[in-house]
Amino acid sequence: MSGYFGGIPAIRYEGPASTNEFAFRHYNPDEVVLGKRMEDHMRFAVAYWHSFAYQGGDPFGGQTLDRPWFADGMAAAKAKADAAFELFDILGVPFYAFHDADVRPEGASFAESKRNLDEIVEYFAEKQGKHKAKLLWGTANMFSHRRWMSGAATNPDPDVYAYAAASVKANLDATHRLGGANYVLWGGREGYETLLNTDLAAERAHAGRFLQQVVDYKHRIGFKGAILIEPKPQEPSKHQYDFDVATVYGFLKDFGLEHEVKVNIEQGHAILAGHSFEHEIALASALGIFGSIDMNRNDYQSGWDTDQFPNNHAEKALAFYEILKAGGYTTGGTNFDAKIRRQSLDAEDLVLAHVGGMDTCARALKAAAALIESGELEAARKARYAGWETAPAKAMLAGSLEAAAARVTAEGLEPEPKSGRQERLENLWNRYI
Amino acid sequence: MSGYFGGIPAIRYEGPASTNEFAFRHYNPDEVVLGKRMEDHMRFAVAYWHSFAYQGGDPFGGQTLDRPWFADGMAAAKAKADAAFELFDILGVPFYAFHDADVRPEGASFAESKRNLDEIVEYFAEKQGKHKAKLLWGTANMFSHRRWMSGAATNPDPDVYAYAAASVKANLDATHRLGGANYVLWGGREGYETLLNTDLAAERAHAGRFLQQVVDYKHRIGFKGAILIEPKPQEPSKHQYDFDVATVYGFLKDFGLEHEVKVNIEQGHAILAGHSFEHEIALASALGIFGSIDMNRNDYQSGWDTDQFPNNHAEKALAFYEILKAGGYTTGGTNFDAKIRRQSLDAEDLVLAHVGGMDTCARALKAAAALIESGELEAARKARYAGWETAPAKAMLAGSLEAAAARVTAEGLEPEPKSGRQERLENLWNRYI
Amino acid sequence: MSGYFGGIPAIRYEGPASTNEFAFRHYNPDEVVLGKRMEDHMRFAVAYWHSFAYQGGDPFGGQTLDRPWFADGMAAAKAKADAAFELFDILGVPFYAFHDADVRPEGASFAESKRNLDEIVEYFAEKQGKHKAKLLWGTANMFSHRRWMSGAATNPDPDVYAYAAASVKANLDATHRLGGANYVLWGGREGYETLLNTDLAAERAHAGRFLQQVVDYKHRIGFKGAILIEPKPQEPSKHQYDFDVATVYGFLKDFGLEHEVKVNIEQGHAILAGHSFEHEIALASALGIFGSIDMNRNDYQSGWDTDQFPNNHAEKALAFYEILKAGGYTTGGTNFDAKIRRQSLDAEDLVLAHVGGMDTCARALKAAAALIESGELEAARKARYAGWETAPAKAMLAGSLEAAAARVTAEGLEPEPKSGRQERLENLWNRYI
Amino acid sequence: MSGYFGGIPAIRYEGPASTNEFAFRHYNPDEVVLGKRMEDHMRFAVAYWHSFAYQGGDPFGGQTLDRPWFADGMAAAKAKADAAFELFDILGVPFYAFHDADVRPEGASFAESKRNLDEIVEYFAEKQGKHKAKLLWGTANMFSHRRWMSGAATNPDPDVYAYAAASVKANLDATHRLGGANYVLWGGREGYETLLNTDLAAERAHAGRFLQQVVDYKHRIGFKGAILIEPKPQEPSKHQYDFDVATVYGFLKDFGLEHEVKVNIEQGHAILAGHSFEHEIALASALGIFGSIDMNRNDYQSGWDTDQFPNNHAEKALAFYEILKAGGYTTGGTNFDAKIRRQSLDAEDLVLAHVGGMDTCARALKAAAALIESGELEAARKARYAGWETAPAKAMLAGSLEAAAARVTAEGLEPEPKSGRQERLENLWNRYI
Repeated sequence: MSGYFGGIPAIRYEGPASTNEFAFRHYNPDEVVLGKRMEDHMRFAVAYWHSFAYQGGDPFGGQTLDRPWFADGMAAAKAKADAAFELFDILGVPFYAFHDADVRPEGASFAESKRNLDEIVEYFAEKQGKHKAKLLWGTANMFSHRRWMSGAATNPDPDVYAYAAASVKANLDATHRLGGANYVLWGGREGYETLLNTDLAAERAHAGRFLQQVVDYKHRIGFKGAILIEPKPQEPSKHQYDFDVATVYGFLKDFGLEHEVKVNIEQGHAILAGHSFEHEIALASALGIFGSIDMNRNDYQSGWDTDQFPNNHAEKALAFYEILKAGGYTTGGTNFDAKIRRQSLDAEDLVLAHVGGMDTCARALKAAAALIESGELEAARKARYAGWETAPAKAMLAGSLEAAAARVTAEGLEPEPKSGRQERLENLWNRYI
Repeated sequence: MSGYFGGIPAIRYEGPASTNEFAFRHYNPDEVVLGKRMEDHMRFAVAYWHSFAYQGGDPFGGQTLDRPWFADGMAAAKAKADAAFELFDILGVPFYAFHDADVRPEGASFAESKRNLDEIVEYFAEKQGKHKAKLLWGTANMFSHRRWMSGAATNPDPDVYAYAAASVKANLDATHRLGGANYVLWGGREGYETLLNTDLAAERAHAGRFLQQVVDYKHRIGFKGAILIEPKPQEPSKHQYDFDVATVYGFLKDFGLEHEVKVNIEQGHAILAGHSFEHEIALASALGIFGSIDMNRNDYQSGWDTDQFPNNHAEKALAFYEILKAGGYTTGGTNFDAKIRRQSLDAEDLVLAHVGGMDTCARALKAAAALIESGELEAARKARYAGWETAPAKAMLAGSLEAAAARVTAEGLEPEPKSGRQERLENLWNRYI
Repeated sequence: MSGYFGGIPAIRYEGPASTNEFAFRHYNPDEVVLGKRMEDHMRFAVAYWHSFAYQGGDPFGGQTLDRPWFADGMAAAKAKADAAFELFDILGVPFYAFHDADVRPEGASFAESKRNLDEIVEYFAEKQGKHKAKLLWGTANMFSHRRWMSGAATNPDPDVYAYAAASVKANLDATHRLGGANYVLWGGREGYETLLNTDLAAERAHAGRFLQQVVDYKHRIGFKGAILIEPKPQEPSKHQYDFDVATVYGFLKDFGLEHEVKVNIEQGHAILAGHSFEHEIALASALGIFGSIDMNRNDYQSGWDTDQFPNNHAEKALAFYEILKAGGYTTGGTNFDAKIRRQSLDAEDLVLAHVGGMDTCARALKAAAALIESGELEAARKARYAGWETAPAKAMLAGSLEAAAARVTAEGLEPEPKSGRQERLENLWNRYI
Repeated sequence: MSGYFGGIPAIRYEGPASTNEFAFRHYNPDEVVLGKRMEDHMRFAVAYWHSFAYQGGDPFGGQTLDRPWFADGMAAAKAKADAAFELFDILGVPFYAFHDADVRPEGASFAESKRNLDEIVEYFAEKQGKHKAKLLWGTANMFSHRRWMSGAATNPDPDVYAYAAASVKANLDATHRLGGANYVLWGGREGYETLLNTDLAAERAHAGRFLQQVVDYKHRIGFKGAILIEPKPQEPSKHQYDFDVATVYGFLKDFGLEHEVKVNIEQGHAILAGHSFEHEIALASALGIFGSIDMNRNDYQSGWDTDQFPNNHAEKALAFYEILKAGGYTTGGTNFDAKIRRQSLDAEDLVLAHVGGMDTCARALKAAAALIESGELEAARKARYAGWETAPAKAMLAGSLEAAAARVTAEGLEPEPKSGRQERLENLWNRYI
């Protein structure tokens, strides 16, 4: 293969004993797990942003990475696309994802930016025809340019709201054109720094109305993919409006959108919110709004988004267990919204980061699937709640507080606690890891 | 005055220049602020729990405090009540609050515990007749006894659910009997330690149904006070179901209770959830569910509930500003769910902790009121959002995404950002502190 | 076997495929790893405190566990010791560890407490003669009783300092009598809540002098074990003086004790301090003060000590890698200062918690050992620093700033960064997990 | 006044009642506090970096600020210097501080960068002759350019160590030329991301040797200012070697530099390390290494460096109390290493941020000074430790563990705890705020 990754072979499955860096040891796309091919379970996507647009900067330092496509203009944008599809091929992933700002040069006006986007989208359409990777989701970057500094749909300036409408429309159209499976909104500037200058109630109302307009438009154009909100508690804002899954749910209920919009859950964001990743998945599943995953972890001890590739399958297995229990992905997938470290300069580093991440997830999936198949954990859980399957318990739920209360004295209840058996279940779990 | 606090005088307002420890320097109950007496603004309450039942223990050490009423039996419970009302009188507070477990001995059976509660409630009723303090809220402690270790309404055992129903019924009846202004539910064990043994969806459904039963019962008995949920993100559970205001809101919406139930916001809990106190107040106000306040702060750098008395008025002023903007308390109040430090052994320490806390709040209220009166901050805020008052902006909100988007090209919009002026507003704020 | 754990068999190694809960799947004491028996590598110890004295309390709830030895008096203390040695036998651990307060009733006076300690120590000595388990370390609990509330050696009251001296002397004597391998000091109250009432400089000076006195005494009585300080950043104090390994090192240097005292590193404490566990081990090793391990993890997202049994071998492997690189334990060991969850009520839970913990550590050790044996990681690390092996680099370190600076212009240096290859090394690591 | 800040008047003291935004309400340079002019107490410095080089970027967005000097080349560097001295004049500050990268264009080679630095230093020297502001400290930016990505003195590549030596030499020479009062080292890349590719012991040794070389060079050239290390726990690295004051102290002791090097303490860094600001000051003072202050706070609930201007005098007062107790600054000062918010676009915002910050500090200083003068807090503290002034207490410290222990039985000691009176002292404190 020639091109940016020239010399790096397509990655094949070689099994756990392989010592070949450029091979999968766990991800075997065609292997059937719980009646489904692994590729169809995982639905891996490469994120254009971190993998192709990140230059290595952090708050204390500038660019470290050096890629031939780091330049302005459409030619560079197409070279970037060429390299991207080259990587998709090497990895054999079925999906990719992008923001407009990742793929096209910013124009001097909205119209020019839009023309640039349309041009690259046609280039992508052509690429999709010749390569395997399809679009998992598109999205508008409404946080990097200075026009968004005080919010997009929540901006104090209505002109910025209009600009946000135009941006989402353009990106939703582009996603529709490319047959994207979902459209994502992450409100990086939909939040505030200080209440001193913020009308929280108005901003929240504008965000809700905006989302209604997006959903209406989606139906109007016949886009069949899911609309996904991506929760994050803070960073860049001190307080983001889409804090976590529970917050998004209340927001959707408030604007009558709980059957229209789902969530795209990122592990790193879950951690920043003080939740485990699996909690967010389980909660979204219970609320009927589970959509898709951004599989980038944070360092648990760094208070900002470190967006690292996953590398601990034991930790990821519980997340995949919850996804499998929820019935697996429908439109969603496993997106690597993860970036290589800024000291990882080489083309090989970028490839190996994805290989390791995919293998970590595949290994986690297999462990989770084996435990699902054995049924041992579900049996223990079911036994713990068995009391609720009885008729009196069901009647108690259906009845009044007084009726429930009356049982205590009538039956002389003094409930004796039973062990929660946490350590035992952790040991059971470890038999499958 | 004789009794436990013998020798400590009733605390009077002496003004900022006073050097008398046993005087208010800022809290002047009859002073009129924004057209209302300070006492009616603040609606201070003393929390029975921390002020009379806390023995000084922490996870690494046992009892340090020594009170004559630390003993079993009804006599000790009444001695405790005597001391409590003595303190209420010394401070001149209009309210107090309690859990059942704070005020009555635990019985060998539910029936016995109930009889003990009824007896002490009659004692309180008598006290209320002779003293100023009335009941701000009552609540059931459904977290300390081992029967609750795996949850109350969310327990895997339906018998515990029944026990919870009986406990809330008893406490709601008691609160009603005492003319309480509110009834509070804090779900200290309504959460989980590990998903391995937890059916999150079932537990959440039970919690919702339980709350519906409580609200139905409240109406049935004619209790006019508010039902309040107190959010907390974690501790004791790893994950509490009532994480924060936004989470509670989604939960209420889901069970059709958003017009029935409000929130009791604790600063310490807000901090643990990663929010500022004023954020939680402003959000609850925007959602129409602001109820009452637990005025105990956490140390920002300790990851557990330190439940300290407030001592920094500059920090509290923004909270009171939001409360005033929300129209002030209706049934709610400023409850000191705060505990003295375990090294603060003396009766005087307990009194002075409240004096300092009340003064801190009063000073914050006055600063907030002065800024409200001047209108300077609201004027700046209004100016920032003025664009939304125009007809085209309103039409844009009412219209479609396409219509909003069309403005960008039609009008050639390239919005120029305007300064958020945060530092300037912080300076303005400081003129009032 | 009769006794408290009656019916639970001695735990034997059955290999990874075993589905027997009461078997080791990874810990095989006699298996030779890197030329040493696993038992001699791990040197497992059971902590008396959490495993036998913990009653299930937390800041919001009381006792949940029910053990026959939860009673006052020497008879109960001996029953507890019988159960403890029964568990040590079941697990086959070579070591245990205790605080005085865990093993003897508190007396009405120091003399009585001391007599109680001496009596139980003789009982232990007898037990040690008949059972396998020996003492890894002893320690004085100088944090639970109210006398220590404001510190032990750092107390404002010199009488408490004297009491601390008497307590450490008694416990060091007891440890010496039992042939203990180490003596540990954790300063749970050696810290402060507020600078307002604290003379930090004086308290630090007293802590340093106290440690000198302890070391002098150790030599005087001929105790050959190591003296270990256990760092912790906060909890119970807002600020503990022995924050982390680096802080303890500076403290030891200041009092001339860096060759006399080592550290006992707890994973949970490392996490609270913002460090990874392996960082603290690597740093202690670099500073020559690595001593022993408390193998209890925290939940990364809870801001207090959750003291859980380890259950993720992938996470622990790096810690054991650093221990192996440091040459392994000398006097130290792997102490389970870990407690079962308060909902884990059954005797079996206590056994299985240790089984799971030991297996997690054993699996981590084997992974670390295999990577050490392969040398792949060390080879990569060595290559990265190879430049420092050259003569000019060594001369530059030995020389002056000017001489080093002169090379830049003389040689026209413009150093080109090289990839840190983090993801690649993480993938390599995962081949061994 | 013409220039960038044209139209903004010099800021004068107008007293607390002033409603003029462009006036000091608390900072009155010539007012004498505790026998010293406020200007001489505060020794305010403006940080070139945040105030003149920051362009408004954050991890999710690019430039928002627009300054005429944001361009390459020496002309822009001089325009920046002109604006900087204009601001220094407006504020009347006696000091400023800079990194090389803030003030000169990066050259294509070290030699060119050095020539650029030398040219701008001469320009500064000229400016200093005509304006009031002098240099508080200079420093080398060894973290932004990609050459430093893996460390400066701790880089795996010895050539980068050489480059670091050349950079520090150049900046120390420049600082000496300008009569700087201090030279600062903040090791933004002296830390690591993962132990997998790091030789911690070697890197720490190189950092120590480098610092010895710097100190030797300082003496050789006769620089009389202090060498200051600035501790920070993390960010950009996951783990920085200069974690906090205690860590730096141990490091200095290890390399024999504890009498040569002091610390520059930043509030934001203290917070990230889990300490209060005042703790770090008090500890540095106790250890004899207190040097200077970076007066930029973090948001307590954001896990990264927010570097905000101080705006809560109540919080800062305890810091100034500790500084005053330590005898005040010698070579150090109060540096505003604080940046305006990225939404604060206007020239006026930059001025008002400093005005507010200076007033906050001045108000804190006055409160602290008043409490020092009254002696009330020190009297309470002294009383708490009075026992240590007695001869037996002193003898006990000087004697053996056995002798101290013997007192317990000889005197029948059972120390009764005394109240720590925290709330009372907090109330006292609030009388002065």
